[in-house]
Amino acid sequence: MTATLANSRDIALQDRARRVIPNGMWGHMATRSIAPGYPQFFSRADGCRVWDADGNEYIDFMCAWGPNVLGYHHEAVDAAALAQLRVVDSGNGPTETLVELAEELTATLDHADWCLFQKNGTDATTACITIARAGTGRRKIIHARGAYHGAVPWCSPSVVGVTAEDRAHLIPFDWGDAASLDAAVAQAGDDLAAIILTAFRHDVARDQELPTTAFLQAARAHCDRTGAMLICDDVRAGFRLDLRGSWARHGVKPDLAAYSKAIANGWPLAAIAGADRARAGAESIFTTGSFWYGAAAMAAGLATIRILRDTDALAHTEAMGNRLRKGLDEAASRHGYRLRQTGPVQMPMVLVDGDRDLAIGNALCLAALRHGVYLHPRHNMFLCAAHGPADIDRAVEAVDRAFADIAAAGLRPA
Amino acid sequence: MTATLANSRDIALQDRARRVIPNGMWGHMATRSIAPGYPQFFSRADGCRVWDADGNEYIDFMCAWGPNVLGYHHEAVDAAALAQLRVVDSGNGPTETLVELAEELTATLDHADWCLFQKNGTDATTACITIARAGTGRRKIIHARGAYHGAVPWCSPSVVGVTAEDRAHLIPFDWGDAASLDAAVAQAGDDLAAIILTAFRHDVARDQELPTTAFLQAARAHCDRTGAMLICDDVRAGFRLDLRGSWARHGVKPDLAAYSKAIANGWPLAAIAGADRARAGAESIFTTGSFWYGAAAMAAGLATIRILRDTDALAHTEAMGNRLRKGLDEAASRHGYRLRQTGPVQMPMVLVDGDRDLAIGNALCLAALRHGVYLHPRHNMFLCAAHGPADIDRAVEAVDRAFADIAAAGLRPA
Repeated sequence: MTATLANSRDIALQDRARRVIPNGMWGHMATRSIAPGYPQFFSRADGCRVWDADGNEYIDFMCAWGPNVLGYHHEAVDAAALAQLRVVDSGNGPTETLVELAEELTATLDHADWCLFQKNGTDATTACITIARAGTGRRKIIHARGAYHGAVPWCSPSVVGVTAEDRAHLIPFDWGDAASLDAAVAQAGDDLAAIILTAFRHDVARDQELPTTAFLQAARAHCDRTGAMLICDDVRAGFRLDLRGSWARHGVKPDLAAYSKAIANGWPLAAIAGADRARAGAESIFTTGSFWYGAAAMAAGLATIRILRDTDALAHTEAMGNRLRKGLDEAASRHGYRLRQTGPVQMPMVLVDGDRDLAIGNALCLAALRHGVYLHPRHNMFLCAAHGPADIDRAVEAVDRAFADIAAAGLRPA
Repeated sequence: MTATLANSRDIALQDRARRVIPNGMWGHMATRSIAPGYPQFFSRADGCRVWDADGNEYIDFMCAWGPNVLGYHHEAVDAAALAQLRVVDSGNGPTETLVELAEELTATLDHADWCLFQKNGTDATTACITIARAGTGRRKIIHARGAYHGAVPWCSPSVVGVTAEDRAHLIPFDWGDAASLDAAVAQAGDDLAAIILTAFRHDVARDQELPTTAFLQAARAHCDRTGAMLICDDVRAGFRLDLRGSWARHGVKPDLAAYSKAIANGWPLAAIAGADRARAGAESIFTTGSFWYGAAAMAAGLATIRILRDTDALAHTEAMGNRLRKGLDEAASRHGYRLRQTGPVQMPMVLVDGDRDLAIGNALCLAALRHGVYLHPRHNMFLCAAHGPADIDRAVEAVDRAFADIAAAGLRPA
């Protein structure tokens, strides 16, 4: 017997929202972009748990779509931010915390000599492009087809309201394909400003791909040869996989990297970390935002980085990711399904093999919701340090029951 | 005798910053963009006062460059934001606060049927452009030459790192000049997507200009006739001049308006408020950011709007602005200078008449700093509700002493 999800408050809020917000919601958090039936509004978050507007509690595997890396309401992070808030947050200029954070990040990231700060990932990727063009005096930007780098005209996944000129100097290639990258570099000729790559291939609704060291080295070599800038868009993966930067394990250093999401455990912050090779470009451009200098988020960022450095938070999260992956595979098998689990275990993409239109995945995730687990059917998910073995085991048990539900409903790959 | 500004701590921080931040600072808060000698780092803010890194206290007339409208650390605003923070800020989706804030804003602003939220003014102006293009299926954007609409390639005051294509569809005209606007509209032909205007002309380092009703009506008529969208960039002035929107007193309604800065009294938030005429465009585009759904800033916004509505905060601020303008004029006269004070009194631009290279204004503001008042020599300033008559009088007295200092140094218009 499947529990019914109480959702009257959520539905009432959705009705109110449709009157004063286009479509009732916009952007990646609009639940119609997930699957019909998902709760749209939330009322609480704590550790690795979230509560929707109707008070239903879930073990959470979206982590606010990435920002939550240590657990919601991490005491030390919030205490640092609140202490800063009490003296000054947005003022006429930055505080000492800006300098401390830049010092900490350049000491922590293996590729960084300097930093700039912003509020969202798109701010950082956009400024990286501008810095690369300023520093090289060139225009062409090579990017992987289908990669997400933000939601403004030059990079938005939608072209509605976007002009052809907004993307005039972008050259796409196929992620991980050295020959395709070679062709794109040849096409750019002597006008190549940058190659921008996500930390790994984390496109929506498809198997994720980790980069090979050879692929990253090839991109690095193209930039070294042409004088272009190599940009790592580490917004989604940064400070979750590797505190040194997500390519450190490959020994490949970007000239510019964009960070946000997990950098301050949920407080709004983004950063560009750059090498000296890109410093002149960064010194020459104008980039700013009213709230980019807010000291509270910077204090939260400083605390987050130090906790990640001084604890086993990331290793623990990886262990929990492995435990979840194994548990989900076993649960699927028990009910005669096969999962395709790809990407880093801390950022799992879980697809049901043979589920061509995502109907099975959607039904599985809706059933999991009813059993108290918040999953996403086609976007990579996120684990955080607050997930413990008991949370993972309970989540696996809930997904096991969700598989039983969809099996009973006869949902099988064609 | 002029007091010397203790600044050893600021200088030490600037030295540290130069190692890990390009130029030591970037954007509008870089003090080299103000005048050499300004403190770069701050340590505290309260009410209408700020303290620099060396502990020097100032009566503040920048208000964090606009966000501070009720006074730094306004108790009710911060209490609302902190109460929200304790339950959830960044989660897997928005909270009821999003709906309440959209309801409050559409009820408060005279032109708004719906809202979208972001983090910074540039997010909002950029999405307004995209919505206008999406809704009209056209490309051309008419803007006033020299107006500031943000700091990304399509609108940045600097063209370093910007390609020609980034601005391919922009058509400039001269603010307030109906014939120039007519010519721009004619040039756009049947491809006009939008006219974007700041609430008033608040360009840097020049006399500010309030719009005439006739000018705004002409812009409105062009949009009505062509089907284009009229966009009010109310980022800088919104929620400081008029709670209904800065053009309400003219009876001219924009189709789209961008807000940020004062909207949440220093908490990071931006909004687009649109008319039903622009709703289809807004429904069709993709725009988002990791932290755009943060509920704490929305709770702060809701509290700010309600306090502005239920108190005489804005009328009081205007009265204080008049008191300051009168006091500064008298102080200047006493020492044989003449000021050009333009713009709304709550957002004063104060220039010394005949000061062609700003040398006198820079010296005056540096002297005022030493006497405990933080002014800006060439950007509009901001007053807030925490400025009381005694603060204004004390500030005027300090500026009087600053005039005496520069007069003693022989600084006079040529």
